Amino acid sequence: MKTNKLILVTNDDGIFAPGLASLARTASQFGDVVIVAPNSPQSGMGHAITINQPIRLNRIHTFPNMDAYECSGTPVDCVKLAKNVILKNRPIDICLSGINHGSNASINIIYSGTMSAAMEASLENIPSIGFSLLDYSFEADFEASTEFVSAIIEKALSIGINNCNLLNVNIPKLKKNEIKGIKVCKQAEGRWDEEFMEAKDPRNEPYYWLTGKFVSSDSGTDSDIWALENGFISVVPSGHDLTVYKAIQTNKYFETL
Amino acid sequence: MKTNKLILVTNDDGIFAPGLASLARTASQFGDVVIVAPNSPQSGMGHAITINQPIRLNRIHTFPNMDAYECSGTPVDCVKLAKNVILKNRPIDICLSGINHGSNASINIIYSGTMSAAMEASLENIPSIGFSLLDYSFEADFEASTEFVSAIIEKALSIGINNCNLLNVNIPKLKKNEIKGIKVCKQAEGRWDEEFMEAKDPRNEPYYWLTGKFVSSDSGTDSDIWALENGFISVVPSGHDLTVYKAIQTNKYFETL
Repeated sequence: MKTNKLILVTNDDGIFAPGLASLARTASQFGDVVIVAPNSPQSGMGHAITINQPIRLNRIHTFPNMDAYECSGTPVDCVKLAKNVILKNRPIDICLSGINHGSNASINIIYSGTMSAAMEASLENIPSIGFSLLDYSFEADFEASTEFVSAIIEKALSIGINNCNLLNVNIPKLKKNEIKGIKVCKQAEGRWDEEFMEAKDPRNEPYYWLTGKFVSSDSGTDSDIWALENGFISVVPSGHDLTVYKAIQTNKYFETL
Repeated sequence: MKTNKLILVTNDDGIFAPGLASLARTASQFGDVVIVAPNSPQSGMGHAITINQPIRLNRIHTFPNMDAYECSGTPVDCVKLAKNVILKNRPIDICLSGINHGSNASINIIYSGTMSAAMEASLENIPSIGFSLLDYSFEADFEASTEFVSAIIEKALSIGINNCNLLNVNIPKLKKNEIKGIKVCKQAEGRWDEEFMEAKDPRNEPYYWLTGKFVSSDSGTDSDIWALENGFISVVPSGHDLTVYKAIQTNKYFETL
């Protein structure tokens, strides 16, 4: 099903990440793919944008039959450059971000450059999907889930995404025949249990290096973490409105100050 | 009202920003203030964290009667270092971020390092408030709103924040007697209308520099933008769950793939 869709592909692991190549290949079945991705790894960049310095943007020719650009900025910068500079005035049918090397389930959506790029596109009313595979390895097997990734993109292009325009898709690290299917679910509650490695540099000056592990605190069966732990691909319809509506009325006492 | 509260103060404009000094001074009425802030401006850093390189942390002595540290990382890194390294094992009563030089109303909460620092603390169940003044100037007048800022902190410390633990507080650029009061409201819908300045460097290589202006698309009277445009301080109870709940059921067709 090759159509005339215009598909923007980006990520946060960088232009040479195998996950990006896999996603671009899958996307190319459905239309014209334009890749705009960072020229260096940008994991954990969240929704950062580059405002205090210029951004470089270079066309590269390593992706057969696709327009591809590498950019010195953040994942969100990539989307802004794609929309405003590279594809100026051309409507983008869908933005696909990933496939991320590692999970973006639960609260990791907040830290993730991959998901922030997808969210940036969704802020521009472009339907967007961020894909992540629960395998941090550079040699992760992206082929096991290709049929699902392809089917999700096709569905989003043909039917759309209802009531929001951003999906957070996470894929368990399983063989093809072990993936049980797809669950549309909510973002699990969780947190990072962190510590800092503390060490001294060659000049005996201290430095700190962030490390930690994610801990789910969600015991429900309706969350992305539950779906992933039970062999399903998780799909969380996501948005950008951080208002806690039930807290508006209950905090009206601040109005009496 | 000096109490024994432990108050973490941070920001994204950097350790020497006047907005930080103003907030720390106000906070010091209520307990022991510990400042941990970036050593360089980090506006627009969103929820970025530093994972691929070490972070430096240095104690500084420019804030009378306060512990203060400057950090080479992002605003979110500052909160993580404060919790895990500097204040290890001491419960933080409240995290205050800002006062930001410039608005963080509407969707700007997503791009804001100031609000992301506050959100990071809230993810650790620390009640948190991000403050922003609608004046980008380094010489902005933070004193006009000091009484309101003080009253909001006092209320949050004494009564708490109901049903969430993060407030996004924006302050209009007005004289003291022009501020009409406080509105507890929702995050306005809006977007950035952007373009990139395109130019050539001394070697004739192109570069791009992000510029743009915020455009509200919210016509309601219940939003932060409305409150600010009408002379009120806006308080938006905010959270970290990006799930669009009404879209879970309506996107179940993805489960049939």
